[in-house]
Amino acid sequence: MTGQNYEDQIYSTKDAIEIVWTLVSTAMIFFMQSGFALVEVGSVRAKNAQSILIKNLCDSAIGCIGFWLVGYAFAFGDVKYVIGFGSDYFASSNFKELETDNYKWFIFQYSFAATSATIVSGALAERCQLATYLCFSFLMTSFIYPVVVSWIWADQSWGTGWLKNIGFIDFAGSGVVHMVGGVCAVWGAKILGERYGREKMRRVEKMRSEGSLGNVDHYVGPAGRNSISWNDHEFQEVLQHVKGDYREAFKEWISTQQPEFKPHNPALIVTGTLLLWVCWLFFNGGSAVIFSPRKNAPAKVIMCNVISAAAGGLFAVFFKPRICGTYSFVSQYDPGTICNGIIVGLVSCTASCDKIEVWSAFLIGTIGSTFYSVGCLLLQKFNIDDPLEASAVHLGGGTWGVMAVSFFNNEVGLFYDAQAGIKQFGLQLLGAIAIACWVSLIVAPFFLTMKKFNLLRVPKEIEVVGLDISELGGVPEEVYAKLRKDFGFLTPNQSPMQSFNRGVKRSMVDDLLTESINKDNEEQVKQRVVFSKNLKADHETSKFGLD
Amino acid sequence: MTGQNYEDQIYSTKDAIEIVWTLVSTAMIFFMQSGFALVEVGSVRAKNAQSILIKNLCDSAIGCIGFWLVGYAFAFGDVKYVIGFGSDYFASSNFKELETDNYKWFIFQYSFAATSATIVSGALAERCQLATYLCFSFLMTSFIYPVVVSWIWADQSWGTGWLKNIGFIDFAGSGVVHMVGGVCAVWGAKILGERYGREKMRRVEKMRSEGSLGNVDHYVGPAGRNSISWNDHEFQEVLQHVKGDYREAFKEWISTQQPEFKPHNPALIVTGTLLLWVCWLFFNGGSAVIFSPRKNAPAKVIMCNVISAAAGGLFAVFFKPRICGTYSFVSQYDPGTICNGIIVGLVSCTASCDKIEVWSAFLIGTIGSTFYSVGCLLLQKFNIDDPLEASAVHLGGGTWGVMAVSFFNNEVGLFYDAQAGIKQFGLQLLGAIAIACWVSLIVAPFFLTMKKFNLLRVPKEIEVVGLDISELGGVPEEVYAKLRKDFGFLTPNQSPMQSFNRGVKRSMVDDLLTESINKDNEEQVKQRVVFSKNLKADHETSKFGLD
Amino acid sequence: MTGQNYEDQIYSTKDAIEIVWTLVSTAMIFFMQSGFALVEVGSVRAKNAQSILIKNLCDSAIGCIGFWLVGYAFAFGDVKYVIGFGSDYFASSNFKELETDNYKWFIFQYSFAATSATIVSGALAERCQLATYLCFSFLMTSFIYPVVVSWIWADQSWGTGWLKNIGFIDFAGSGVVHMVGGVCAVWGAKILGERYGREKMRRVEKMRSEGSLGNVDHYVGPAGRNSISWNDHEFQEVLQHVKGDYREAFKEWISTQQPEFKPHNPALIVTGTLLLWVCWLFFNGGSAVIFSPRKNAPAKVIMCNVISAAAGGLFAVFFKPRICGTYSFVSQYDPGTICNGIIVGLVSCTASCDKIEVWSAFLIGTIGSTFYSVGCLLLQKFNIDDPLEASAVHLGGGTWGVMAVSFFNNEVGLFYDAQAGIKQFGLQLLGAIAIACWVSLIVAPFFLTMKKFNLLRVPKEIEVVGLDISELGGVPEEVYAKLRKDFGFLTPNQSPMQSFNRGVKRSMVDDLLTESINKDNEEQVKQRVVFSKNLKADHETSKFGLD
Repeated sequence: MTGQNYEDQIYSTKDAIEIVWTLVSTAMIFFMQSGFALVEVGSVRAKNAQSILIKNLCDSAIGCIGFWLVGYAFAFGDVKYVIGFGSDYFASSNFKELETDNYKWFIFQYSFAATSATIVSGALAERCQLATYLCFSFLMTSFIYPVVVSWIWADQSWGTGWLKNIGFIDFAGSGVVHMVGGVCAVWGAKILGERYGREKMRRVEKMRSEGSLGNVDHYVGPAGRNSISWNDHEFQEVLQHVKGDYREAFKEWISTQQPEFKPHNPALIVTGTLLLWVCWLFFNGGSAVIFSPRKNAPAKVIMCNVISAAAGGLFAVFFKPRICGTYSFVSQYDPGTICNGIIVGLVSCTASCDKIEVWSAFLIGTIGSTFYSVGCLLLQKFNIDDPLEASAVHLGGGTWGVMAVSFFNNEVGLFYDAQAGIKQFGLQLLGAIAIACWVSLIVAPFFLTMKKFNLLRVPKEIEVVGLDISELGGVPEEVYAKLRKDFGFLTPNQSPMQSFNRGVKRSMVDDLLTESINKDNEEQVKQRVVFSKNLKADHETSKFGLD
Repeated sequence: MTGQNYEDQIYSTKDAIEIVWTLVSTAMIFFMQSGFALVEVGSVRAKNAQSILIKNLCDSAIGCIGFWLVGYAFAFGDVKYVIGFGSDYFASSNFKELETDNYKWFIFQYSFAATSATIVSGALAERCQLATYLCFSFLMTSFIYPVVVSWIWADQSWGTGWLKNIGFIDFAGSGVVHMVGGVCAVWGAKILGERYGREKMRRVEKMRSEGSLGNVDHYVGPAGRNSISWNDHEFQEVLQHVKGDYREAFKEWISTQQPEFKPHNPALIVTGTLLLWVCWLFFNGGSAVIFSPRKNAPAKVIMCNVISAAAGGLFAVFFKPRICGTYSFVSQYDPGTICNGIIVGLVSCTASCDKIEVWSAFLIGTIGSTFYSVGCLLLQKFNIDDPLEASAVHLGGGTWGVMAVSFFNNEVGLFYDAQAGIKQFGLQLLGAIAIACWVSLIVAPFFLTMKKFNLLRVPKEIEVVGLDISELGGVPEEVYAKLRKDFGFLTPNQSPMQSFNRGVKRSMVDDLLTESINKDNEEQVKQRVVFSKNLKADHETSKFGLD
Repeated sequence: MTGQNYEDQIYSTKDAIEIVWTLVSTAMIFFMQSGFALVEVGSVRAKNAQSILIKNLCDSAIGCIGFWLVGYAFAFGDVKYVIGFGSDYFASSNFKELETDNYKWFIFQYSFAATSATIVSGALAERCQLATYLCFSFLMTSFIYPVVVSWIWADQSWGTGWLKNIGFIDFAGSGVVHMVGGVCAVWGAKILGERYGREKMRRVEKMRSEGSLGNVDHYVGPAGRNSISWNDHEFQEVLQHVKGDYREAFKEWISTQQPEFKPHNPALIVTGTLLLWVCWLFFNGGSAVIFSPRKNAPAKVIMCNVISAAAGGLFAVFFKPRICGTYSFVSQYDPGTICNGIIVGLVSCTASCDKIEVWSAFLIGTIGSTFYSVGCLLLQKFNIDDPLEASAVHLGGGTWGVMAVSFFNNEVGLFYDAQAGIKQFGLQLLGAIAIACWVSLIVAPFFLTMKKFNLLRVPKEIEVVGLDISELGGVPEEVYAKLRKDFGFLTPNQSPMQSFNRGVKRSMVDDLLTESINKDNEEQVKQRVVFSKNLKADHETSKFGLD
């Protein structure tokens, strides 16, 4: 360390070792974006796969710009109790004059901020408007999240926040990252409302369990697993948007749609989870300092996380089906549950893992997966439709993680020092409540306002058709092939009558799509004319076949 | 290093550098779980995808708990010749009082243990019962594998094992990890038996090659690639479990099933392999010490591995089809083969890579891929159905890797010191035999016992339908859609007769599934009644259509 | 550093820290192989998925052998101005006697060489012959690329190249890696020609925009998105290779094929891109020295890259559709575009990121994505069919990256020192031209020669059927299922007439495949007889059904 020109300083050997560890950790934490993207895309239905992917990519990018422009300054720029505001920190404008290596700290912290934002995309999946989600994403990384960081993680060189001052402990972000993400997820999912068809499914399920369904049991299929009929009021609502001539064909198409809400690709979920498990070792281990006493050093931190994740996963996969009452002969285990169990084990351990023993990690993971299971029950009870159960994982696990400090911390935890533990319990509770209130205060009004202006949710007919087709125009080959096949287009050996029908159906899809998107658009009128012409042309051609 | 309180010790600069390297390596080796999961899920058929995924997740988790509770103690807890048993090591109960940093060593070693266990899941894929596999997994990481480790890797601070004492060399686990996994894989695959349909396929193939097939060539399709008819004794066996009314529909369904045993997603296999390649650089490089002479340091180790993998992959993809006689005009190259070739190149190099020259690595990889190719031939010859050829890769490659030490080791290898080389050859052979015997001694009785109690393999009808549907209840969207379509359910423009059939078929699937699972269950009788009712209800409804 | 025996030297503490950083970076850069493989396999059509995967695996392996045998020597073996030729360096023959740690340097540099080669496979996807691609791959890593490296990156201990001597700056390879790859990609894609069906599609599109299409609008579908009819001269050309009897069935099959050129799996593209983003932090950060002044150290380098990528991605996804005029109500955003935008942001920043400020990185990324967008326009204009737009990304971004140095470099850039900047602009331009010329000089003749001898492109009928089926014999389950279904094979409830047709169609596929591959082969005659027999046998059997 020589002179005032901080730009020209060269790391000491010790600092150099720390920075190698920090940089590798940073990259691996950032890699969690890939893990979350895989888990989320695997968990949604095929027709919304690209939509969730583009949300994940955009939130990484927008989050980066937002955190760079203002977020980092709010979190670390001369913090005064509740927020930072140092002008040197906005858009990294004066990092080079600062004594602390803010370049290093920025990328390390950005990888956490990005994680926090991306948690939410899962809960809003399959029905949220892209632009609104991106606004939320910017708000999250540039304001909501950084303020919480300033309370808890800002330190010495940046000024300290109020929660840190009173002694609240959150080592690597059970509260800062996961509770913040989880609270947003719950509000978002609740205010957005359930995915189209869920309400119906529940209604039928209830009737069935009450025995009032009579012999219409086929509504939910022999084993209660499939084939909701769509001819009730929800369906009628969608049908209004379909032009008269095409209604029959559309009804037919809808009736062949998968009415379940199953993940479309479990392989991606599992790959994503294993990736998250690996990256989490850096999420928590990276926050530990290499030159710490061995009991707080990264090796032990990582060992605790591995154990906690394993315990959480095993407990969840075997007990959640029993806790939630979903165990059956044909549905014993579920890859999604073990994945979420592993993640919740990691989330739970995050706040305390620098100062716990290994057996504590085992217990924390196990109890964490109970929090997750109960969280899922609550989501069901309050009809909150979170396709990934992200709220249960991150809010449930995050809250337990924050509280677990007061039990298992080997300096101030209840099991080590009863008096200190009780005090710490109060502090942790206060912190958790403060985080939940702050986030709710910003995020609930935001989502409600968006909803009021009809900017929150996509129209129902778009939801039914899928966001990929209607918003992105990017239909993967097999989905398009399915559409083509379902509408009987170009199948071999058709009778002339079938060819005729084919023309109708084909135009119908495009028409439907165009209609739903252009609803309030003058363009629509012109296009309708074009499509009518196409339709006619099609009929003309179909007389002669297409070969 | 100050005082006796090991928990409060801080790393020296040199130790700190080593630990950064070890921790990053640990995480990347653990990442191999993801690589193996991808390779395995891509290699099985779609209907068993989730089953293999859940096995991979569970074995990581169970392996972690098992290795923590007892495995690590057997491997490193005051080793006396053949096993460790130090009470400080069980469940990491007294790591903090020990001078060696066992936290670091535990996670590093766990990542190897997890690898060893996960190798086996591939060989047992598509027909092994989940619970039995998990028992095996626990046994593996808590006992079978740790004992081998105690023989070879325990060192000074933990007491040393007999193989190490006499001079057996296995740098990073060709024997310890891959032979152990490979031997289990061979026994498991052999005792489990071939997947349903394989025996038939071989029989037909043989008849065809003998010319005794006559004009029923369609059994194996014009180009010998598809369409086995299922109406022989194997099929009849399955058919017994199907209720009379549904048999016709079931036969129809079976007849449209893919009778081949092709990997369902090569993209995942390739991604997994590239991931394994990267992680293997740490698997071997991470075992090397940063502060070694340059000739044994990680950089050279990694270089050797890259070269060996490349050589193995290239040799395998071009020569294996010729060695195994599978080369044809429409089947020249196969992504699976190059993937396995790369992996076998890495496996072969693992035991010796700290003390070989680069040209040796090239040869080791090349010869390794020959071992793999011959291994595949042997698997065929002995009708061992290993869906991933994991046995050929890990046992073949692992054995060669152990022996390669005696040729290429640049201190005691035959090419450098003939006399020492011959002695080393004996030692390596002894070690390899010892490992194979030990593992066989435990694992063969285990699998045979499980088989005896009918706990090893899933019933045939479940195998046909797929483990995902029958055990996990987690059918991916597209598979379910296929089932629905195959049974003619809800396709447009059906005649009333078709609607009728549809009802039958639909109930049949559920019935079949339930039946097979509940076989010995009283529940069954009740359910049968429910299904009959459903069936009737369905017929009622189908009269009026479903819209 | 003791004595002359370099093999026995142990790193100093500082060197040890650097080597940990370098080794981790190396592995992560090598991991980009996985990223590119994912992006490429996701971007091609399902029928060519395995073909592109095997190309990616093989080029990693062949590149490794090529770079080891000769490439590294050309790049770093006693460089004299334009090429190295030191005999110590071929096949790493005498690394151990050299003072520099060439083991370390080899693997680090190999990871860059592999990247450069793999860029090209995307541009040649779906139509290039495997063997030719592999020859190119070897040529690339063993000669074309190393020569450029010797000009720019060889340094002191290896002798220096002419571009380095005159002051050309390319920190981590915008020119060396990406321009070299990009130039090859452009030449390759142009000389190979467009994929089958593209020319037709453009023609129809043009007619439609000119209004000369009349009422045959169905050629491109009501919304201009699907259903090209195939009965024109291109189709006739393919049809020639189909035996008379099967033509009808083949026409039918073709007519149901997806005539679009859409990526078949966007989830893989996005996962791959996120992976590339992470790895790129090491691609650039790994080239920075840990013990640099803070302003050139890895942390700042990584921060610049994150910002540049985010800016590139966001700018691309919102503005490229407008720049290229592809924005529409049903095609607003496209995951592929944001992915390429992120990548181009990273490419652009690569040459200059050690000596720029963060705001410069933001601008470089933004401008880079404009280069990419304009590049796409040019590809369209010159009818260069690059399925991944790899040329636009790597040539466009790479060229801009090289030039950006002269604007933003905080020592010699125009914005800091106008005079030096102008000089540097000239130097950078000279370097870019030199690279482009050198690569073109080798690669264009290579591809043209291959084309002349008919070794470049697969025959059209193979292209239509897909490379996976015809070359690799490795058809994924679902594609094969589709083929079977499309040919009406084994569907339930067929009339006898359908059973008859089925036989014909089935034989036809195999026959077609065999025919196209064996074209000039005597085997063919024999096989035709076999197939005729099969065909007859099939007809026989179909009378009795298959159950």
